[in-house]
Amino acid sequence: MKKNVLIIGAGGVSQVVAHKCARNNDVLGDIHVASRTVEKCEAIVASVREKGSLKVEGRLEAHALDAMDVAATKALIEKTGAQIVLNVGSSFINMSVLSACIETGAAYIDTAIHEDPLKICETPPWYANYEWKRREECEKAGVTAILGAGFDPGVVNAYAKLAHDEYFDRIDTIDIIDVNAGSHGRYFSTNFDPEINFREFTGQVWSWQDNAWVSNSMFEIRKEWDLPVVGTSTTYMTGHDEIHSLSQNLGVPTVRFWMGFGDHYVNVFTVLKNLGLLSEQPVTTAEGLEVVPLKVVKAVLPDPSSLAPDYTGKTCIGDLVKGVKDGREREVFIYNVADHKDAYNEVGSQGISYTAGVPAVAAAMLIATGEWDVKKMANVEDLAPRPFLAVLDRLGLPTRIREGEDDRALDFA
Amino acid sequence: MKKNVLIIGAGGVSQVVAHKCARNNDVLGDIHVASRTVEKCEAIVASVREKGSLKVEGRLEAHALDAMDVAATKALIEKTGAQIVLNVGSSFINMSVLSACIETGAAYIDTAIHEDPLKICETPPWYANYEWKRREECEKAGVTAILGAGFDPGVVNAYAKLAHDEYFDRIDTIDIIDVNAGSHGRYFSTNFDPEINFREFTGQVWSWQDNAWVSNSMFEIRKEWDLPVVGTSTTYMTGHDEIHSLSQNLGVPTVRFWMGFGDHYVNVFTVLKNLGLLSEQPVTTAEGLEVVPLKVVKAVLPDPSSLAPDYTGKTCIGDLVKGVKDGREREVFIYNVADHKDAYNEVGSQGISYTAGVPAVAAAMLIATGEWDVKKMANVEDLAPRPFLAVLDRLGLPTRIREGEDDRALDFA
Repeated sequence: MKKNVLIIGAGGVSQVVAHKCARNNDVLGDIHVASRTVEKCEAIVASVREKGSLKVEGRLEAHALDAMDVAATKALIEKTGAQIVLNVGSSFINMSVLSACIETGAAYIDTAIHEDPLKICETPPWYANYEWKRREECEKAGVTAILGAGFDPGVVNAYAKLAHDEYFDRIDTIDIIDVNAGSHGRYFSTNFDPEINFREFTGQVWSWQDNAWVSNSMFEIRKEWDLPVVGTSTTYMTGHDEIHSLSQNLGVPTVRFWMGFGDHYVNVFTVLKNLGLLSEQPVTTAEGLEVVPLKVVKAVLPDPSSLAPDYTGKTCIGDLVKGVKDGREREVFIYNVADHKDAYNEVGSQGISYTAGVPAVAAAMLIATGEWDVKKMANVEDLAPRPFLAVLDRLGLPTRIREGEDDRALDFA
Repeated sequence: MKKNVLIIGAGGVSQVVAHKCARNNDVLGDIHVASRTVEKCEAIVASVREKGSLKVEGRLEAHALDAMDVAATKALIEKTGAQIVLNVGSSFINMSVLSACIETGAAYIDTAIHEDPLKICETPPWYANYEWKRREECEKAGVTAILGAGFDPGVVNAYAKLAHDEYFDRIDTIDIIDVNAGSHGRYFSTNFDPEINFREFTGQVWSWQDNAWVSNSMFEIRKEWDLPVVGTSTTYMTGHDEIHSLSQNLGVPTVRFWMGFGDHYVNVFTVLKNLGLLSEQPVTTAEGLEVVPLKVVKAVLPDPSSLAPDYTGKTCIGDLVKGVKDGREREVFIYNVADHKDAYNEVGSQGISYTAGVPAVAAAMLIATGEWDVKKMANVEDLAPRPFLAVLDRLGLPTRIREGEDDRALDFA
C-alpha cells in the first residue's frame, strides 16, 4: 500500500492526471504538481479546485522543480512524502526522475519512452537503450517502475496481454491502430508540442515483422481500416514505443503500429519537411540571424493546449489481433472510443491528453492498492491486465471488443 | 544621341544586362555596374570579360553604390559620364534613381514598378502612386524616363501597342499570359528573390474588366490556355504592372494578366501562406527569439541564381488580343518563346532573368540611337513598337504571331 502522488510536468496530460488523481484522492492521498514553471502547476491546481474535483479533503500543492536535477527531485519526493511519482513531463527527463525514485524508494510511472534530445529514432528495441539497463537496479532497490502507462503505449499493451492470455493459443500479428477522428477546426495543428510530435515522423519507422526489425520511411506504408464508430480510416505505419516491448515480451512474430493521418496533415508535413522547415539544424537568414526552422514552425502553429475548447469528434485506439484459438483462426479488435468534448467538459483537456493521462492514474491507483506494486521494473504487458482495465472502465475509458459481427463492451467488474 | 550606361543592381537580371550591353558597346559606349555590394558587381564584370562579351574595346567598371542615396547616385552618374541609367535593382529604389536622373539629365530605364517596402498591393493604377506624379518634372527637365522596359511589363506592352496600331480597329480584351514551362529540378524554388516574389501573391489581384478595376484574391481565378511550344498551361489571374498602364493608355476595356503555376507550386505556396510562414510580421519562438517567418523561408529555399546551370525548358510569354478588324472579329496571340539553356550558355543566367534583362538593353540602344529618346516619361506602349521589336529580334527575343492555324515569325527588319 503506497500513497501520496507527485505529478511531474504541467502540460495537457498533467492537467488530466491532476483532475483524475483528485477525484480518487481517497485512494491516492496527497497530490503534488511540479514543473520548471510553477505558474503552470498553480493553474492546474486552480483548475482542479474550480471544478471541485477533490473527492475528499486533502493536500493539493504546486511546486517548482527542474526534474533533470536528481537531487532536487529526491528532495521534493522526501519533502512531500510522495510514494508514487507520476512522470508526465518531457520524454527527456525519464532517466533523471527514475534515479530519484530508485534513491528514495518511490514508485515510478511514465507514459512515453526516454529520449535523448540530440538523437532521433534510435536502434530497436528502444527500451534496451535506457530503461531496461536499470531493471536490476530497480529490483535490487525493490522499486516499482511501470513504463509506458499511457494509452499507447500502455492500455494497448494490456489489450495485447489480455488477447494473449484469454483469446488466443497462438498470436500471429498484433496491429495497433490509433485514429484521431476529431476536428480542432484550425488549418493545421499538432496535438502535442510540435517539436516532440514531428520528431516521431522525421526518421526511420521501425516495425517487428516475422521476428525481425524492419525499417521503412515515414508515410511509406499506408493502410485503410474499417473501425468502429469512426469508420474507414487512413493510417500510416509509424514507429512507436510499444512495438519495442511487445515484440520482446509476448513472443509474437509481428507487431506493427498504425497512426491515422488525413491527406491534409500528410501534405502539410511533406511540404514542411521537404523545404527543410522541420530541421533542428540552424540556418542563417540574409540578415545574419541564426535560427532553427522547426522552432519557427512551432511559433506559427497553434498552441496545442488552445485546441481543447473547440475540439469535437472521437478517437478510436485498439489492437487488431490475429492468430489461432482451439485450432481455428481468430481475429479480434480490442479497443476504446473516447470523445474530445466529453474530455474537455470533465477535465478541461482534449481527448488526446485524456487518453494519455487517465491510464497513468489507473496505474497509480493499482500501485496504491498493491495490485501492481510489483517492486521491480515492468512494461504494462508484464502485469495483470484485468485489474487495470477494470479501473479504466470506472475512470472513463471502457474497453470494447469486436469479433466478426459481434461488437460489445468487456465487463471487468 | 546618348551614350555610356550605368547599370544599377547586381542580381541575375543585371548579369544579363551587362553581357548584352557589352555585346553592343559600339552603340552604348562605356559600361558601369553599381550596387551596394561591389563584389557582386565585380563578379559580373569578371563574367563579361571571361566570356569575351565586349564587342569593341571600352570601359567596363564596377562601383559600390547605395542607390537610395540620391546625391551619391548623382555623383556616380557625373563621375562616369553615363547618359543612360539602367535601373535593374530592387523595386524599392526607383524613385531615388529617377531623382538622380532628373537632376543630372541622364535617361532613365527600369523594368518594374516602384514599391514601398512597407506596403503590399496598393490601389490601382499603381503608376499613379509614384511614377506618373513625376511626369511634368521629367518633361520640364527634358529627361527620357522609360518605365517597365522588361518583358512583362515591357515587351508585352509593345505587343499590345502593335496589335492596337496594326491588327485591330477595336480591341475588346488583352490577356497577357506568362508561362514558364522550364524545370529547375529542385523540390521548390522561386525564380526571383523569394521575399519579392511572394509579395506579388499575398495581397489582392487587380484586373481591368469592362473599364473598371476588379479585385480578386490570388489563386482564385484559374484558366488553362493552349500555347505554342509549351502546350496546355495552367495559369492564375495575377496582379501585374502592365495592367496599370495599358488600361489607362490604350482605351481597351479589359486587360488581365495570367501567370502560369503548376499544382505543386500552388500547394507549397498555400501551405506556407496558411501556416503564416510567408508573413513579414515577426513572431517570437519559445526561446524568445524574434524572427520574421518569410526570412526563414527564404533562408531554406535555393538561391534563385543557383538554379541557372540546371534549368531546362522554355518560357512562353505573350498577348492574346481579341477585337474587331474591318468589321470582323479577330483574335491574335503575339508572343515570344525563350529557352533557359540557351540563356545560360549565352550570358550565364536562366531564362527568367534573360527575358527581363534583354528588353531593357534594347530600350537603352533606342535611346542611344535617338529613336526612343523622347525627353519625357513614357510607358512602353507610348512609344513606337516596331524599332523596339526589331532590336529584340537581333538581341535574341524574336516575336511570333499566331492567328487561327497560322503561326509565324514577325519580321521587323
